[in-house]
Amino acid sequence: MSDTDTTATEEGPDFDRGGGLLPAIAQDAETGDVLMLAYMNRESYEETLSTGRAVYYSRSRNRLWRKGEESGNVQHVKAIFVDCDRDTILLKVDQVGGAACHKGYRSCFYRQVTPKGLAITAQRIFDPEEVYGK
Amino acid sequence: MSDTDTTATEEGPDFDRGGGLLPAIAQDAETGDVLMLAYMNRESYEETLSTGRAVYYSRSRNRLWRKGEESGNVQHVKAIFVDCDRDTILLKVDQVGGAACHKGYRSCFYRQVTPKGLAITAQRIFDPEEVYGK
Repeated sequence: MSDTDTTATEEGPDFDRGGGLLPAIAQDAETGDVLMLAYMNRESYEETLSTGRAVYYSRSRNRLWRKGEESGNVQHVKAIFVDCDRDTILLKVDQVGGAACHKGYRSCFYRQVTPKGLAITAQRIFDPEEVYGK
Repeated sequence: MSDTDTTATEEGPDFDRGGGLLPAIAQDAETGDVLMLAYMNRESYEETLSTGRAVYYSRSRNRLWRKGEESGNVQHVKAIFVDCDRDTILLKVDQVGGAACHKGYRSCFYRQVTPKGLAITAQRIFDPEEVYGK
């Protein structure tokens, strides 16, 4: 079966889409847990490729966000995938420190939607106040 | 440890963020595979809650997108999570038909970034031409 999507010009994410900012999902390479979603621009993507560590673009701070720069919880990138439209990035990572979320949880998705509201379904790995000194 | 994020007012995603459109990750509830990323507005989210089937908002068609409406490959939602900022949604789903991607693959992330370009790392589950008649 031919697949016309596979051309020499398609080397990675299409940063012409999404206003230059694409969602990037970080998934634990070993457990498959979805750890977080952040955004990448071309510069952060290329730095991710060259360093092997996840670099995002912070929309709130309007600058590159080298994941773990403050907490030390860097993400070593084991593999990168793009979706069918090449406008979403999937990173398989080794999460140093065991927690991706600045709230101290392994995954940012530590709250489940229930009929009674949000329920925390995970245990904290670290205390944010100790790590970030806030 | 207190967690000030858990308040009665936080019942789910914050659609005031992201211009009313939030990214939603669909993850296979059983295998943990990340199947796709799409977007939800409040209406699609509420229909997802009420029907138990994933409903997204198509940015290209500017209308609700009841996943599987054409292919029959609906997603039964087993659990819903929100991230720390409540601006990303994670759905754990049972993917009917075994393939989430309109290209016929189990996951939309069927291509890996390699030094030589994108490499297809998955097998097709169905032929899109047969399913969509294109």
